[in-house]
Order: sequence, then C-alpha cells, then structure tokens
Amino acid sequence: MEQNSSHNPPWAPTAGLYQKAVEQGLRSLGWAQARPEGLYRPMEYFLGLGGKRLRPVLCLTACGMVGSDPYLALPQALAVEIFHNFTLLHDDVMDRSPLRRGQPTVHERYGLDAAILSGDALLIEAYTQLAKAPLRVLPEILAEFNRVALQVCQGQQMDMDFQKRSSVGMEEYREMIGLKTAVLLGSSLKIGALVGGAEPAQASALFRVGYLVGLAFQVQDDWLDVYGDPERFGKQVAGDIKACKHSFLRVMAESRAQNNQRATLAQSFERLALLGQSGEEAPNFDAEVQQVIQCYNELGLEEGALAYQHQLLDEAMALLASLPFGSSPGAAFLADYALYLARRQE
Amino acid sequence: MEQNSSHNPPWAPTAGLYQKAVEQGLRSLGWAQARPEGLYRPMEYFLGLGGKRLRPVLCLTACGMVGSDPYLALPQALAVEIFHNFTLLHDDVMDRSPLRRGQPTVHERYGLDAAILSGDALLIEAYTQLAKAPLRVLPEILAEFNRVALQVCQGQQMDMDFQKRSSVGMEEYREMIGLKTAVLLGSSLKIGALVGGAEPAQASALFRVGYLVGLAFQVQDDWLDVYGDPERFGKQVAGDIKACKHSFLRVMAESRAQNNQRATLAQSFERLALLGQSGEEAPNFDAEVQQVIQCYNELGLEEGALAYQHQLLDEAMALLASLPFGSSPGAAFLADYALYLARRQE
Repeated sequence: MEQNSSHNPPWAPTAGLYQKAVEQGLRSLGWAQARPEGLYRPMEYFLGLGGKRLRPVLCLTACGMVGSDPYLALPQALAVEIFHNFTLLHDDVMDRSPLRRGQPTVHERYGLDAAILSGDALLIEAYTQLAKAPLRVLPEILAEFNRVALQVCQGQQMDMDFQKRSSVGMEEYREMIGLKTAVLLGSSLKIGALVGGAEPAQASALFRVGYLVGLAFQVQDDWLDVYGDPERFGKQVAGDIKACKHSFLRVMAESRAQNNQRATLAQSFERLALLGQSGEEAPNFDAEVQQVIQCYNELGLEEGALAYQHQLLDEAMALLASLPFGSSPGAAFLADYALYLARRQE
Repeated sequence: MEQNSSHNPPWAPTAGLYQKAVEQGLRSLGWAQARPEGLYRPMEYFLGLGGKRLRPVLCLTACGMVGSDPYLALPQALAVEIFHNFTLLHDDVMDRSPLRRGQPTVHERYGLDAAILSGDALLIEAYTQLAKAPLRVLPEILAEFNRVALQVCQGQQMDMDFQKRSSVGMEEYREMIGLKTAVLLGSSLKIGALVGGAEPAQASALFRVGYLVGLAFQVQDDWLDVYGDPERFGKQVAGDIKACKHSFLRVMAESRAQNNQRATLAQSFERLALLGQSGEEAPNFDAEVQQVIQCYNELGLEEGALAYQHQLLDEAMALLASLPFGSSPGAAFLADYALYLARRQE
C-alpha cells in the first residue's frame, strides 16, 4: 500500500481515507450475501482483488476540491470503480488473461459464462450507483458516463484491431489509449466535480486534467515494461515486446526509426510473432528482445518517452493551477497524487 | 409478419405503425456508419435480425394509453428493445446457440470477443436512450430499469443453475421465468406509462399486467414445443425435451406426477441426458421423447398448461380493465395484442 511507503508522501493520508471509504462502500452493497450465488460471488471476488481505487479517489477529490463534502460523490465514485472493474473483467476474457493482480481471473476461476454475466451485472450496478446523483446534475452525469462508457468499448475494439496489424501510427495509438484509459480518469474527476456543484466549464477543465494524467499514466506503464526495475515493477520484463504489443514505446520507435532501423524492428517483431505462435521457450526470445531494446535505446526512447510524459503532466498541472480552486488543498493533493501515479516505479 | 396474416386481426395496424417507428428509430442511431467497425457491425447485424419488437410496442402503447403522444416514449422504447437484444446476444454465447432467428449468432459470425464487447456496447446504448426521458420521471425510470436489468441477469443465472439440476420446483421455476422474461414486459409498459405521465400506482398496475402476460407468453412457448403445429411453429418438435430443459411442461409434470410416473419421467430424462452427452443420432431419442410426451398426456398437461395460462391472462385483463384508461382504444389494442401474443401458434 502506498501509505506505508517509507517515503511517507504528502498525498498518502488523504488517499488512504478515500480508499477506506470506497472499500466500505463496496462492502455495503451486500454482494457477499446476495443471491443467486453464481452471479454475485464472481462480482464480490473480482472487486475484492483490490487495487489503488484510483478512479474513485479522483472522483471524491474533485467533489471536495470544488467546495463540497467529498463523500457527497461516494455513489458516483463507486460507479466509476465498478465500471472500471466491469471493463477489466470482460477484457480479461477477450485477452485470454489467466491472472489479474496475481490471482486467477474470473473466467479462469468461475468459467466463461460467469465472467460474461457477472461482468454485465457489474455494469448495471455501476449505473445503479451513478443514478443516485442529485437531480440537478443527473442528466449531465448520465450523458457524461454514457459517452465515456461507449468510448471505453471503442478503445478496447481499437486495441484488439491493432493486435492484428503489423504497425500502428502515433496518432491512432494516442486515440486508442485516450479512449481505453484516459477518458475514464478524466470523467472520474468531471463527475465528482459536477456532483460537488462545479460550473460546467470547470468540470470540463478537470476532465482535461484527468485525461492528460491518464495518457501519462499509460506511457509510464509502457515505459516500465522495458525500463522499470523488475524487482519493483512485478511484471515480467519486456512482456509487451515478447507479446508484440503495440505499446507506446513500439509506436514511438516506429515513428522515429529511419529505413534500416525500421526494417530491423519489423523483422524482430515478425520473428517474435512466429516464436509466440510456435510456443517456443523464453530463451529463444531473448536475442530478439535484446535487438528491439537496443533499437529503442539507439532511438533514445527511454528519455523520449519521459519527455513526452512530462509535457503531458506540465499541461495538466498548469491547467489545474489555472482553475479558481487551483491552489486549494484539494488541488495540491490532486497534483501530488497524479504526479506520483504517472511517475510510479511499480 | 403478423399484419399480413389472413386473419387481419384488429391489433395489426397499430402494431405495424409502432414497429415501423421502432425500425426507423433503430436505423437513426447510425450504427451502420459508426466506427470502429468491429464494434458496431455486430450490433447492427443483431438488431437487424428483426423480431416482433414486442417490448417497444408495449412501451409506446402504454405511453399513448395514459393520454400522451405514444412516440414521446420512443427513446425508452428503443432502450427496452436494445436491452432485450443485449441479453439475447450474451445469452446466445452462454447457451452456445449457433442460430438466432434462423441466422448465425454473433459469436458464430464475428467471434467470442465481438459478441462480448458488442453486447456490452448495446447495454450502454440502451442506457443512452433511456436517459432521454423527461427530467420529471428520470429518477423513477432509471430506478425501474436498473432493478429490472439486474433481475434479468439473476433470472439467466437461475436458468443456468437449473440446467445442472435433476429437478426444479414450480415455485422456483415461476420465479426464474418471472425474472428472465416477465419483468421486462412489465417494465416496458411501466416505463412507457411513466413517460406518458401516469400516476405511479397506475404505472405499477401496468407492470403487473405485463408481468402476467409475460408469464403466459413463456408458458405458451413451452406448450408449443410439444403441442404446437410443427409446420407453423418453426422450431424442432420437442426440442426442450431432447435438451432436458426444465420447461414449464416438465416442471408441471414433475409437480403432478405420482410415484410411478415420477420414476418414469426421471428415467427418461436421465437417458436423454446420456444420449445428448454421447452425441447420439435423433432416432435414438424418439422412444424416450415419446415416453415423456405420453406421460405429459396422461397428466393432462395440454389442457393443464392452457388452464394456467388462461388464469394468468384473465387476471391481467381484469386488472387492465379496472384502470381509469381501461376502456380506451389503447387498452383495447393492448388486450388484443397481448392475447394474440400469449396464444400465438407460431
């Protein structure tokens, strides 16, 4: 848990309080006792796998930042967290992932049917929480959530489409991670702000802050895959390269590479794809993976990706600071927390 | 199409008008041009398979019956139709069904991933249409829809749980079809009535009317499986028996059977289950199927099921007639249409 880190960062106490409220709110939904068991047990299991509860923390933060009791937005905070878990649960099926946070995924543990139906029920539960918004903002919040929920599906479809292609451009990559990841972070802030009584323009500015942080967050994820400390990061090193994923680094490499490097990269990823299909053992991947990493290094991606990330975060922080509540304690917390998330090493 | 029937029934012109508005409304959503194609093509395909558009017709009918322009509820009518198709699309995956309305199911045609994600997007689109309700009734309509959507998931889970059991009681069977089928018919009427400005008590009475008609509708479906004219019904005869489904007839048979008959039925279904698992050819099923049908006949199920159905419809019609708008042309249409649906021979 972040709040136990030896750094004792300034955002830790507030984040810890919000996380605790979210855990309590999730438990109070009563899924542990709900029937039929076959529907509710997988829902309870999946939400119980934990996580940083990042999106609901953002939602509560925004509600407090604009001058209201943060917990006024607790149902909507639960809605974005439940929605996020709905997408993870169904994505795990589509990605054939065996593990989530080190534990078996729902389809591995309870079967395909349970994964589909329990995921559906999570989406409905998200709307059930969302609908508890004050009437004065209910239409805006529903419109926002409906738009973003559909965009996340569009992003997931683009991601799956990319996997069938040999190369992806930077513009379309940014669009995909924008849809799949960043809009929900932006929306978590915007919905919290609307519940808290923010002006629409300010709520939209907070959406943009969250969107930029979300992009930076994803860039960091892809950066850690190659440049992270494997002891701290927890995932296998260069997993994205081995899986031939169109990650930010790969897309950036392809956009920067000259003729020779471009050919080398294409060849390496082609060989890795063949190795993946043939079920070869890891040692045979290593030479190709090293070739790709060497290419990334020659292209200066370690610094290039960080420079792009800093640009995103600078814009986000400047925008946040320009808002009427930009120097409130809530905004300071948001800035600290967002920078921590986007630059995390694990 | 029902409106081309040689009987030229009284409900046909109104139902035809409403169906046309629903088709037009569905086309106007623009899925044919929407991107990414991998997400929207399966949605467009599945909604394009047609059907009676029963639920949206009920929704528009209720809105008109309580004194408003029926088309005021068109977005909510689309919502219930899109929601219904979402459940069919995901149920087809869970039931491993190759065909829907004589055409390949989405998972057969576009693959599992498309079936999951396009189904998810349908559910979100349903909420998007639903949220267009007038603000004065938005919270009630959302609460109603959220409750019913979750109940349909619960019903599907109960249905899947039943398939693993050797026998099912009448009470729990009624609960299951109530959740899986009847509540959405009731809710289609209730939501239309609320949009049309009905008093809450009247809207709830219409829910009950739709719920009872929904139960009768399901009883008819199960009755047709054994007692329908195969030329008119279109499905294979006694498909429920061959699949060892806990249909209304089987549940009623088990509740009526005495010791000997109970043992005969149990033995037949046990043998049919074994035949199903071993992939035997149809001729080997016939003796067992005939045994079950003979048992049903001895127990008087052909008439017994119809008697129960009439009881449901009598209660529904009496309740409808007792409402302030119970003798309006809209109510007359609803009564004619519901009776046609619940007693259809195909």
